[in-house]
Amino acid sequence: MKLKTEYRVIYGDTDQMGVVYNANYLKMFERGRNEFFRQLNFSYRKLEKNHDILLPVVESYCKYLKGARYDDLLEIITEVVSLNPVKIKFEYEIRRESEIVAEGYTLHVFMKNNKIHRLDKDVYNNLKNLISNQK
Amino acid sequence: MKLKTEYRVIYGDTDQMGVVYNANYLKMFERGRNEFFRQLNFSYRKLEKNHDILLPVVESYCKYLKGARYDDLLEIITEVVSLNPVKIKFEYEIRRESEIVAEGYTLHVFMKNNKIHRLDKDVYNNLKNLISNQK
Amino acid sequence: MKLKTEYRVIYGDTDQMGVVYNANYLKMFERGRNEFFRQLNFSYRKLEKNHDILLPVVESYCKYLKGARYDDLLEIITEVVSLNPVKIKFEYEIRRESEIVAEGYTLHVFMKNNKIHRLDKDVYNNLKNLISNQK
Amino acid sequence: MKLKTEYRVIYGDTDQMGVVYNANYLKMFERGRNEFFRQLNFSYRKLEKNHDILLPVVESYCKYLKGARYDDLLEIITEVVSLNPVKIKFEYEIRRESEIVAEGYTLHVFMKNNKIHRLDKDVYNNLKNLISNQK
Repeated sequence: MKLKTEYRVIYGDTDQMGVVYNANYLKMFERGRNEFFRQLNFSYRKLEKNHDILLPVVESYCKYLKGARYDDLLEIITEVVSLNPVKIKFEYEIRRESEIVAEGYTLHVFMKNNKIHRLDKDVYNNLKNLISNQK
Repeated sequence: MKLKTEYRVIYGDTDQMGVVYNANYLKMFERGRNEFFRQLNFSYRKLEKNHDILLPVVESYCKYLKGARYDDLLEIITEVVSLNPVKIKFEYEIRRESEIVAEGYTLHVFMKNNKIHRLDKDVYNNLKNLISNQK
Repeated sequence: MKLKTEYRVIYGDTDQMGVVYNANYLKMFERGRNEFFRQLNFSYRKLEKNHDILLPVVESYCKYLKGARYDDLLEIITEVVSLNPVKIKFEYEIRRESEIVAEGYTLHVFMKNNKIHRLDKDVYNNLKNLISNQK
Repeated sequence: MKLKTEYRVIYGDTDQMGVVYNANYLKMFERGRNEFFRQLNFSYRKLEKNHDILLPVVESYCKYLKGARYDDLLEIITEVVSLNPVKIKFEYEIRRESEIVAEGYTLHVFMKNNKIHRLDKDVYNNLKNLISNQK
């Protein structure tokens, strides 16, 4: 399942080269995965609040293909490409109409009390089903 | 007492006008007041950790006079202009050699458990003396 | 005329106090005025591209009333409160449902070739009418 | 040659997990490579100004090992791991005392007039010698 969300570039996202600054694509990736969870109706906020589970990024990669510019309306396309009870990997495409502006991935671990956490079977299955059902 | 610290501008601070983006001066203001506390040997981090006291910004003001540019080595000059047991106000100047690039202030309240907090007499006096002694 | 746009808070906007970092409200103000121009059908991008006119911020002020939190859907309400051929002032309210989270203003000058620029009569009248008509 | 520079974490770098937000490490990487050029006495700013050559990031990778925290004094260690007349690759380590907090790389191409640019022999040799001499 690929989920889409939009993002409008502001001045504050650009740098003096006139394009979006490299680090700011990682913020778009975050926006993509937040929206991903929301569209699944699986609130990451609830995971945090009710289960004290955090999902920090352990790796990020981004390939910059075209410079996104001020006022561009970008599309952030997000997909889960692997999931197990301790890790989840997302892939992203940032598009401006038909062009891919940037693409990349983030790898995350589930954490609880500062330790890597294995998701409970029900939470894991719930998440897994939600993702598969929509494929 | 005016305390000084330096900051080197990176690409990520600029926007497509070729100068530092307006919001990023507020980050320099924060850098100034952190260094202010450190040079007083009054650790804000300790205030947070040992007393659970936070110091959120309740007002900020910035006047942008010159555009700071990539690679500029700026000087952040910080001063406490008023202090009472519940509030503290800082003023800042951002300089590039003899020019003032930006100036402004931030107003803060002491907070504990999500409520405005009146500093204990000893903490307050300690802070007040530290600031006055150095004038 | 007050124009509204929405913004969803990401992790990257928050700081360790658990609320949106003070400087990031200025980015929302920018988002508000960009959208303001877009809804007027007066493209700021065109002003830049066709007329080489820039609109840098010369003053910003923000009052922080409530902490906006991760995943909050905020409403940015933007209004022009004064306009003349060299300056424009915007006021902003950031709302979360019925609460005002932050409010402030930015003051801008029209600039061309690094100098303050007086808008041509037609551009100025066009902009002024657009703003008034919608009141 | 590995070059070191320091960076003090501010509140604005952290997120509500209480650690530095993932995208902000890429800004430290930039700070590392700027300082790298400066210590070589090879000004990137001059490359831009005198030769109109830009050095955009085409790939970035970061592995997050420990969470850097507010007020941490980090060491950014930067190294060129490959160089040819069109590309340059940097590797980075972000350290807090003896611990590696994050590590990663960025890949860059030389660009002129929006096209990939092959460095002139003298500029290239100059850069190459500077890097090798210091190994």
